[in-house]
Amino acid sequence: SLSVAKMAPDDYVGFTFFVGCMAMMAASVFFFLSMNSFDKKWRTSILVSGLITFIAAVHYWYMRDYWVSNMESPTFFRYVDWVLTVPLMCVEFYLILKVAGAKKSLMWRLIFLSVVMLVTGYMGEVLYRDQAWFWGLISGLAYFVIVYDIWFGTAKKLAEAAGGAVLKAHKTLCWFVLVGWAIYPIGYMAGTPGWYEGAFGGLDLDVIYNIGDAINKIGFGLVVYNLAVNSSKE
Amino acid sequence: SLSVAKMAPDDYVGFTFFVGCMAMMAASVFFFLSMNSFDKKWRTSILVSGLITFIAAVHYWYMRDYWVSNMESPTFFRYVDWVLTVPLMCVEFYLILKVAGAKKSLMWRLIFLSVVMLVTGYMGEVLYRDQAWFWGLISGLAYFVIVYDIWFGTAKKLAEAAGGAVLKAHKTLCWFVLVGWAIYPIGYMAGTPGWYEGAFGGLDLDVIYNIGDAINKIGFGLVVYNLAVNSSKE
Ligand SMILES: CC1=C(/C=C/C(C)=C/C=C/C(C)=C/C=O)C(C)(C)CCC1
Ligand SMILES: CC1=C(/C=C/C(C)=C/C=C/C(C)=C/C=O)C(C)(C)CCC1
Repeated sequence: SLSVAKMAPDDYVGFTFFVGCMAMMAASVFFFLSMNSFDKKWRTSILVSGLITFIAAVHYWYMRDYWVSNMESPTFFRYVDWVLTVPLMCVEFYLILKVAGAKKSLMWRLIFLSVVMLVTGYMGEVLYRDQAWFWGLISGLAYFVIVYDIWFGTAKKLAEAAGGAVLKAHKTLCWFVLVGWAIYPIGYMAGTPGWYEGAFGGLDLDVIYNIGDAINKIGFGLVVYNLAVNSSKE
Repeated sequence: SLSVAKMAPDDYVGFTFFVGCMAMMAASVFFFLSMNSFDKKWRTSILVSGLITFIAAVHYWYMRDYWVSNMESPTFFRYVDWVLTVPLMCVEFYLILKVAGAKKSLMWRLIFLSVVMLVTGYMGEVLYRDQAWFWGLISGLAYFVIVYDIWFGTAKKLAEAAGGAVLKAHKTLCWFVLVGWAIYPIGYMAGTPGWYEGAFGGLDLDVIYNIGDAINKIGFGLVVYNLAVNSSKE
């Protein structure tokens, strides 16, 4: 029978799932419909911004229903989402640095590292929780190499060669990866057994992930959008 | 009552169904929204790339729910998908060779062969499993003729006449058909009775099909997309 579950009025986790879902949908429409107003060289970047929020919108659609039905964290779906969106964010770094001559090898290296980071993270969080510290360490190393590459490595040098609006956008995206993405390993430490678990008790992870995802995905896309706006003024 | 099934966290078959579904959706949006940035002569090819992934996205949507509900391979839906998408891939060969004067007869011949391949395959896999070897043989012959035609026949000659980016794309697509498509007859042999069945025990066919489909459909489409990018540079 057709039925819509009642929401508890104080279910603030559910509230962030619903707001998050709608925000991702609206952001996707925004990016998709504005891409053609920009010069050809920025269109793919803005389209990819839209794909990232679109993929998230579809997963939040599941996840809010999953939450309402099971009152349980939809970890499985979060990882389905990440394994597609995080590599696409790596593609964004490549796309905006293409003007400075970025090579496909940079893109593939970042994609590979992000997949290693997520697959080992899933192993520790879900499959082999007893060795969570071990898998988390490998995952963290991959994360560290990504951070290093964009802050100080090849990607940084390309951004400096490009200068202007590209350099500015690259710097902002670097902060997203260093600070915005850091909430995920913190969530991992709060949610898996280990010497560290006590330190983060009491945090409601789903709320933090939902707010973090919105900032990391929509915000990230808006940085790229702004770059397209600023570079047409230059 | 509204309910979303819980996923077993180690259901990696289910994981590939979900990731595959979303990847196909995202790829469709990508092809649909980027087609108009290209010269008119490439738009239909890119649109068809999008149709192929879009048809797959809808079937993966069924298939992932089918998997979650029945924990059984959705063979029926795979064939529904193939009978539409494989002929469309044949159309792609024709579309990219049109610049070199490809005739509609090439397109119809490839379409006809692909339909024979799939209908006889379905007969062996589902309807007359006792004669699986016989139907598999006919299906394999049709597959062989397709491979021959694109690697050495009319299609190859047209690609050589076109040269440049078209020839390069044609060659890559030929490899897709020879290597990427070969997983399907291997799956057939693993899944039907016959002298050959033992050779492939232990493989989880759905995982292999899900990964193979993503490569064969999204990858195939991206080759065509790249052709459009490269030919505007030439
Ligand atoms: C380092 C590390 C992790 C990092 C996850 C990250 C960095 C996820 C980023 C997700 C994003 C950006 C989502 C979308 O907005 C895991 C897998 C939790 C496991 C523990 C160690
Ligand atoms: C030769 C052969 C087969 C070939 C199937 C093929 C080649 C399917 C291709 C599907 C694609 C490309 C799907 C989309 O991505 C069958 C029917 C299994 C039956 C056994 C013999």
